[in-house]
Amino acid sequence: MTKKERQRIVILGGGFGGVYTAMYLEKALGRRDDFELVLINKENYFVFQPMLAEVVSGSIGILDTVSPIRRMLPKTELHVREIESIDTVGQTIITAPGFNLHPKVISYDHLVLALGNVTDFRGLRGLPEHAIPFKTLSDALYIRNHVIHVLEEAAIEPRDSDLRKQLLTFVVAGGGFSGVEVVAELNDFIRGVIKNYQIEESEVRVVLLHALDRILPELDEKLALYAQNLLAKRGVEVRLHARLDAATGVEALLADGSRIPTRTLISTVPSSPNPLIDLLKLPKERGKLKADASLLVENTINIWALGDCALVPMKDGGLCPPTAQFAIRQAKTVADNIVASIRGGQFKQFHFKELGKLGALGHRSAVAQVFGINISGFLAWFMWRTIYLMKLPGWGRRLKVAASWTFDLFLPPELVQLKLTNSQGVAHEHFEPGQEVFHQGDIGDRIYIITSGKAEVVKRDWERDISLAHLGAGEFFGEMALLNQTTRNASVRCVEAMDVLSIPKREFSALAATLPTMRENLEKVMARRQAQRNLQAWFETRL
Amino acid sequence: MTKKERQRIVILGGGFGGVYTAMYLEKALGRRDDFELVLINKENYFVFQPMLAEVVSGSIGILDTVSPIRRMLPKTELHVREIESIDTVGQTIITAPGFNLHPKVISYDHLVLALGNVTDFRGLRGLPEHAIPFKTLSDALYIRNHVIHVLEEAAIEPRDSDLRKQLLTFVVAGGGFSGVEVVAELNDFIRGVIKNYQIEESEVRVVLLHALDRILPELDEKLALYAQNLLAKRGVEVRLHARLDAATGVEALLADGSRIPTRTLISTVPSSPNPLIDLLKLPKERGKLKADASLLVENTINIWALGDCALVPMKDGGLCPPTAQFAIRQAKTVADNIVASIRGGQFKQFHFKELGKLGALGHRSAVAQVFGINISGFLAWFMWRTIYLMKLPGWGRRLKVAASWTFDLFLPPELVQLKLTNSQGVAHEHFEPGQEVFHQGDIGDRIYIITSGKAEVVKRDWERDISLAHLGAGEFFGEMALLNQTTRNASVRCVEAMDVLSIPKREFSALAATLPTMRENLEKVMARRQAQRNLQAWFETRL
Repeated sequence: MTKKERQRIVILGGGFGGVYTAMYLEKALGRRDDFELVLINKENYFVFQPMLAEVVSGSIGILDTVSPIRRMLPKTELHVREIESIDTVGQTIITAPGFNLHPKVISYDHLVLALGNVTDFRGLRGLPEHAIPFKTLSDALYIRNHVIHVLEEAAIEPRDSDLRKQLLTFVVAGGGFSGVEVVAELNDFIRGVIKNYQIEESEVRVVLLHALDRILPELDEKLALYAQNLLAKRGVEVRLHARLDAATGVEALLADGSRIPTRTLISTVPSSPNPLIDLLKLPKERGKLKADASLLVENTINIWALGDCALVPMKDGGLCPPTAQFAIRQAKTVADNIVASIRGGQFKQFHFKELGKLGALGHRSAVAQVFGINISGFLAWFMWRTIYLMKLPGWGRRLKVAASWTFDLFLPPELVQLKLTNSQGVAHEHFEPGQEVFHQGDIGDRIYIITSGKAEVVKRDWERDISLAHLGAGEFFGEMALLNQTTRNASVRCVEAMDVLSIPKREFSALAATLPTMRENLEKVMARRQAQRNLQAWFETRL
Repeated sequence: MTKKERQRIVILGGGFGGVYTAMYLEKALGRRDDFELVLINKENYFVFQPMLAEVVSGSIGILDTVSPIRRMLPKTELHVREIESIDTVGQTIITAPGFNLHPKVISYDHLVLALGNVTDFRGLRGLPEHAIPFKTLSDALYIRNHVIHVLEEAAIEPRDSDLRKQLLTFVVAGGGFSGVEVVAELNDFIRGVIKNYQIEESEVRVVLLHALDRILPELDEKLALYAQNLLAKRGVEVRLHARLDAATGVEALLADGSRIPTRTLISTVPSSPNPLIDLLKLPKERGKLKADASLLVENTINIWALGDCALVPMKDGGLCPPTAQFAIRQAKTVADNIVASIRGGQFKQFHFKELGKLGALGHRSAVAQVFGINISGFLAWFMWRTIYLMKLPGWGRRLKVAASWTFDLFLPPELVQLKLTNSQGVAHEHFEPGQEVFHQGDIGDRIYIITSGKAEVVKRDWERDISLAHLGAGEFFGEMALLNQTTRNASVRCVEAMDVLSIPKREFSALAATLPTMRENLEKVMARRQAQRNLQAWFETRL
């Protein structure tokens, strides 16, 4: 690394790890200018994760839980972009294009990897298409709007119909902190608003699935059992030893073979480090970056890692847990050590003893474990609110949250469904055997392409079902909708677990008219390339 | 019409006209049950239109300006659905499918048409693809998020670059009340936050286009000129006699041939009645339903029309203007007359004298015309806030708005960009001659299909531009992106005004593999149908 006048520190990720690293570095910078700061994050805000579940229930405003990064970090250059690639050899980051399509290359002297983790549904049948993660502000809003949508639809369906039951069943998978917080808020919200929909309390089913023998494995068993009982008392069905295996648009499928009909499946598991970390050629273990006690990635001199994407050793021999408390303290060490390596000085070793753990259970209850003491119920809830309110960045934000909490004490829950896009576009869907894609007589304005699996076309004629055709991968159905026929003249039923791509009528014509030629063209190019490759291989064997 | 025990009144539309009609009808219903109410609206909330512009600037919270219809109308059955069709002969409404695809048919005894109007870009080159309407809550949020996105991008572009200039130019077309309110709030917001982006005041350009010789034609000339001067003083470029003619993703094209490079084009004009009204076989004029003074649609006995989709005669001979004041009073007449026709009694004739007009100009200024008196500046602004706060439905909502306004006095404007969807999907785009679709070296992950117009493929080689090909309707380009080539090896430039459909790489493969067969199949079906039709025609000539 050549020593330049002014070094550039590039931080990837705008969660607790990234934002607090930048904040400590800004403090260290003061009036000097021996380094500059760039932070790259795909959103322009920092999410205060502990309050995210309250967005679902609306007890705080939509924007109360997030803070604009620019305001928190006035001396940092913020790039609101997706990251396209990280080159640790050339020491550059390429970001995905914004309004212009020209790639943007940012070089660094020090790189801070604080990319966190993601909910990762890959490889789980139907989950990528139909399960809703709970990680970002968009997820929280999406859940909220979806739940209101579902209630609106349930209200106009006849009582005791299968559809109404599906609509009124809400499933959350994962009994860790975030799963428990979201199921608690969701349950409070739904039971608080159903009277506006003329829906009975007994019609609503809220289910929490957890794979192990008790929820909240992070906490002491007594507190976990307290939480479990409290949720049960409020009407949440806690199912232990229940692992979510697959999903369709209408069901959650469990590993033991049982099925829960539902239109709302939220899953907080499984989580894995950001996919960008996967691509890096750096020392890793269980997908996470191996950092040393100074938070340098092993075998590097200018790449730092912290937070949920890093494995950081603790003084007593264990590894840091993936919590905000640790990320914030790690950020301090990273900032100090970067400053030391620029200005000279000794590296610090990360050391921190956890203060405690807090988990909200909705409606004026929480569990807490502070300095080894267990607290539950109203007192823990009061602690939760006080501690997190003080930890929320910025006085403006604190004021707004305090106001929202006050209103929430006496005003009814917010019921507005926010739709930002109306377009349904091209969609991926998963079906399980026996499930109907559509039914004879339904309104149809989409065509379907089977990407894998099998289906059967069935026509009901004079009370008899006649099988018209079997369809497999690469085949399609529903195309009659394009001939201005708006009701389906047969039903299509899944025979073998099936993935489909569905296309709205409106987009189809332009696609169908051009794609054949385009495909031919591509095949020619590919054939030519293969021929060149063969020729080259032939030459190489001769040399 | 057969007399039933209990009559069903179906109201279409959840704006001022529809919601207030239902509200008056609920009052008339009291404890009786001789009629029931159904209201169909595509959102579950009522928008308090006058405050919508404040959502753009964030001086009120996102949800402060809307109220859940269920809470306002506890005795009305609400269907949150799009309307598929209206059958005035069979007296039924069919709504678009929700979670299940089965059509829902709702019959009525009385029908209330309060469908309002829509911003209608049809037939205007490039506007449907690139202009943003300002009518609904989604529009207001979209504008807000788009503007923040644009500022984020401008902040990381070099000063004086063309792209930065485009990004920092904001154009609003239409100088009526809503255009003026949105341009005022937008201008306040942008100039209030640019310091967080290290953007200079002088780099920002906010333009208001108006086709006539002065803005706010609804108001007295003196007030309109006051507003015009105030906007100009705050940095808004007011362009009179300027009619928006066409748009691309990077420019607004005016009727006089001039062009304004911009990435943000908002248009409040032209407006036309809801397309559903078009399809009705009822007496109309200029696209609006002709109602009589009792608000019955002419030649009908149970179809009522009010608000912006109706032409209602005034006592003095004119027609009612399309404002909330009139819609609310018309709603009272509609409700009274429906009750009279169910329970017996005389029809009332609509009569109302306008109280006044109010228009906000952002930052503590407004114009008002009340009982013939002109008021402007701070006093008008104070009146505006007081009157509208009291008119806002529900105490909870009023409290929240008052709190937001209070915070807004001393807290900096909200800067969070809310993205609810990340997918870009299949998109429609419009290009004008000379404009580049993409540039050699750009990152490419989409293919393009030309639906109309022409383009040229140009490769720059050794400082020379070589034209490689000309493309027309039905042809495509950018397909090399599919062969894992991520940078474009040539530029594509529009030669004749061109519409394209662009498809992300990810969706392409499944489409390309299946569409050819699907198309063949469709052609066969169509040929068969044609043959049948020919045969039938042949038979008919013989009979």
